[in-house]
Amino acid sequence: MNKSVMLKWLQEGNIHIPTTLLTHYHTLKLNEKELVLLLQVLAFLDKGKEFPTPSEIAANMSIDSVECHEMLSQLIRRGYITIIDGVNEFGIRFERYSIEPLWEKLIDQYIAADKKEEVEVDHKKET
Amino acid sequence: MNKSVMLKWLQEGNIHIPTTLLTHYHTLKLNEKELVLLLQVLAFLDKGKEFPTPSEIAANMSIDSVECHEMLSQLIRRGYITIIDGVNEFGIRFERYSIEPLWEKLIDQYIAADKKEEVEVDHKKET
Amino acid sequence: MNKSVMLKWLQEGNIHIPTTLLTHYHTLKLNEKELVLLLQVLAFLDKGKEFPTPSEIAANMSIDSVECHEMLSQLIRRGYITIIDGVNEFGIRFERYSIEPLWEKLIDQYIAADKKEEVEVDHKKET
Amino acid sequence: MNKSVMLKWLQEGNIHIPTTLLTHYHTLKLNEKELVLLLQVLAFLDKGKEFPTPSEIAANMSIDSVECHEMLSQLIRRGYITIIDGVNEFGIRFERYSIEPLWEKLIDQYIAADKKEEVEVDHKKET
Repeated sequence: MNKSVMLKWLQEGNIHIPTTLLTHYHTLKLNEKELVLLLQVLAFLDKGKEFPTPSEIAANMSIDSVECHEMLSQLIRRGYITIIDGVNEFGIRFERYSIEPLWEKLIDQYIAADKKEEVEVDHKKET
Repeated sequence: MNKSVMLKWLQEGNIHIPTTLLTHYHTLKLNEKELVLLLQVLAFLDKGKEFPTPSEIAANMSIDSVECHEMLSQLIRRGYITIIDGVNEFGIRFERYSIEPLWEKLIDQYIAADKKEEVEVDHKKET
Repeated sequence: MNKSVMLKWLQEGNIHIPTTLLTHYHTLKLNEKELVLLLQVLAFLDKGKEFPTPSEIAANMSIDSVECHEMLSQLIRRGYITIIDGVNEFGIRFERYSIEPLWEKLIDQYIAADKKEEVEVDHKKET
Repeated sequence: MNKSVMLKWLQEGNIHIPTTLLTHYHTLKLNEKELVLLLQVLAFLDKGKEFPTPSEIAANMSIDSVECHEMLSQLIRRGYITIIDGVNEFGIRFERYSIEPLWEKLIDQYIAADKKEEVEVDHKKET
């Protein structure tokens, strides 16, 4: 091993997830496979790869590309990710995944949980 | 909602995982449930909670505390996490999880993959 | 170099700052030296070192411990950091820095900037 | 304020720096202004903006665009950042900053410090 391995490692970088995603995905009705699939999509987006194929995603996971395709379709239907298509600055059409719907669900959930907590605190104060 | 929700969200913070863990956990013979369990332990460590119980961990996941206990024991046996015990600065005994073994496996794997790649590049050059 | 260097590097970890801090510190009336000093405090807190001395902080910077002490005092007076004292679980008194006031200022600033933008968008719509 | 502010904040994201950069920049002969300028470039790269102008960078800092231009030139001359030019997939020429030279210096420095430490430990053992 030499310096170049370390440089490569450094450049692979990190993936960053709100701690709340890790504590709330189950409440959001996601299981562990679905969570990890979403993290894979996030990691591809971070690297600038905006529309990875089911095979590319499945290659990092315990599932095959057929199951991956099926899971992606379901996550889209259930409103966790969405596909955006458009035309880039060079006039070329593109498609890309967006996980903004996931963040919206997570924020909704977080705000709701916060309100519930407040109500509970209020009740305690009253009694 | 108000400013305080946003402040709380900010303070919950992020969890950061080397992208290589996400791309290599399957090669490391971990499945998605095991990966997420390790991320949960990592998140607890980050928050300064160094020895979470199986129930505390399972509360965030799709598994119950019995299954969580079983999975933790297996991850220890298989050498992904370890329990460290010691005495703190106030003379009190403590136990805490360490996921250093996971990082070691990941680095080993990464270095091995890098060497293999170099060999392949060399072969191409020779032909 | 060997694997252990890489493991150490990995364990040193990363420091994470909201991108908005980097784009808004100047609006928050901080200069670069003050920003970096706050990042140093943040890094010490992350490592669990909650009340670093001016010398420890200055050792990583272009300033000496006297200047560091002076800057810290000013940042406290101007409301960017605060010192919290309390008694820990073992009955020992402690003091620690908190940079929560910085996050509050940043969020205030962010929300204010967002409102201003909305108003500008509204004006455009009206004309 | 409403949910959309929080979503925007979340999407602005974080910037992540190796903690070692924060503890070693001074040894690398960078001052605080230079460090923050490099972080600004890093944040622009993260956002996919690969060749920000001195005015765009200076807008976030306590310096004006002339001083920013001067500092950038010096950082290039002194080997901390470099400009890469090439042709993209659509046949359009591009220029972009790379801070790979900074990471190389940092790793060199880190490895050197590690070796020095080992030597010191060895000396202690011998005496």
